[in-house]
Amino acid sequence: MDDQRDRTDLFSPRFDASGLVTAIVTDADTGVLLMVAHMNAEAIALTQQTGQAHFWSRSRAAMWRKGETSGNGLTMVEMRVDCDQDALLLRVTPAGPACHTGRRSCFYRRVEADGRLAFLDDDAQG
Amino acid sequence: MDDQRDRTDLFSPRFDASGLVTAIVTDADTGVLLMVAHMNAEAIALTQQTGQAHFWSRSRAAMWRKGETSGNGLTMVEMRVDCDQDALLLRVTPAGPACHTGRRSCFYRRVEADGRLAFLDDDAQG
Repeated sequence: MDDQRDRTDLFSPRFDASGLVTAIVTDADTGVLLMVAHMNAEAIALTQQTGQAHFWSRSRAAMWRKGETSGNGLTMVEMRVDCDQDALLLRVTPAGPACHTGRRSCFYRRVEADGRLAFLDDDAQG
Repeated sequence: MDDQRDRTDLFSPRFDASGLVTAIVTDADTGVLLMVAHMNAEAIALTQQTGQAHFWSRSRAAMWRKGETSGNGLTMVEMRVDCDQDALLLRVTPAGPACHTGRRSCFYRRVEADGRLAFLDDDAQG
């Protein structure tokens, strides 16, 4: 890593060719991994300005505020960035289930050695 | 989501145009977010076969086993997949610091409102 992004105290996100960084969302209280999404510069700015997590939907090619339809918004507690500044961590307080399936976390299935998925109890998610 | 990837018990990763999925790595004991990387089908297979986390380096366009140079490998405890199967969670036992900077986690800086980054103590990372 030769661009010093890992040593600077300046926030300088390294956006990909689509203008996005990966956003990892965890529950600030429990540390549980809730979901993964993508943010462009505008989503980052809106999240910082409003305190509510905004993302860029690649499938819909649109900005969205998490919870705008479900009501299950994510209130930001803290934003962190990784060493090469191409991934963000959003530590949040979720208003409800983070997953569109109604589960607390999107990571509710374990990959087994035989290529099957095992559904986990809610307590084991994330 | 209309392809039922969120309901199936078949592991069917949704690779992006580059053949990659996002891999989120957490410490299986503490839940701390250690790093984010990318995996292609071969990296997934190698990780499953060897129990050691393998990733695809986008910058070097090469497969790598985490720890092959640093010694700080990641022994997989469990692999999970998210609802739309484009992100994996690897719960691991790290042999040492996960970040190339020597820190436990790559997420050692907090993004402040003024655009600066605050370096966190090791205990607060991830």
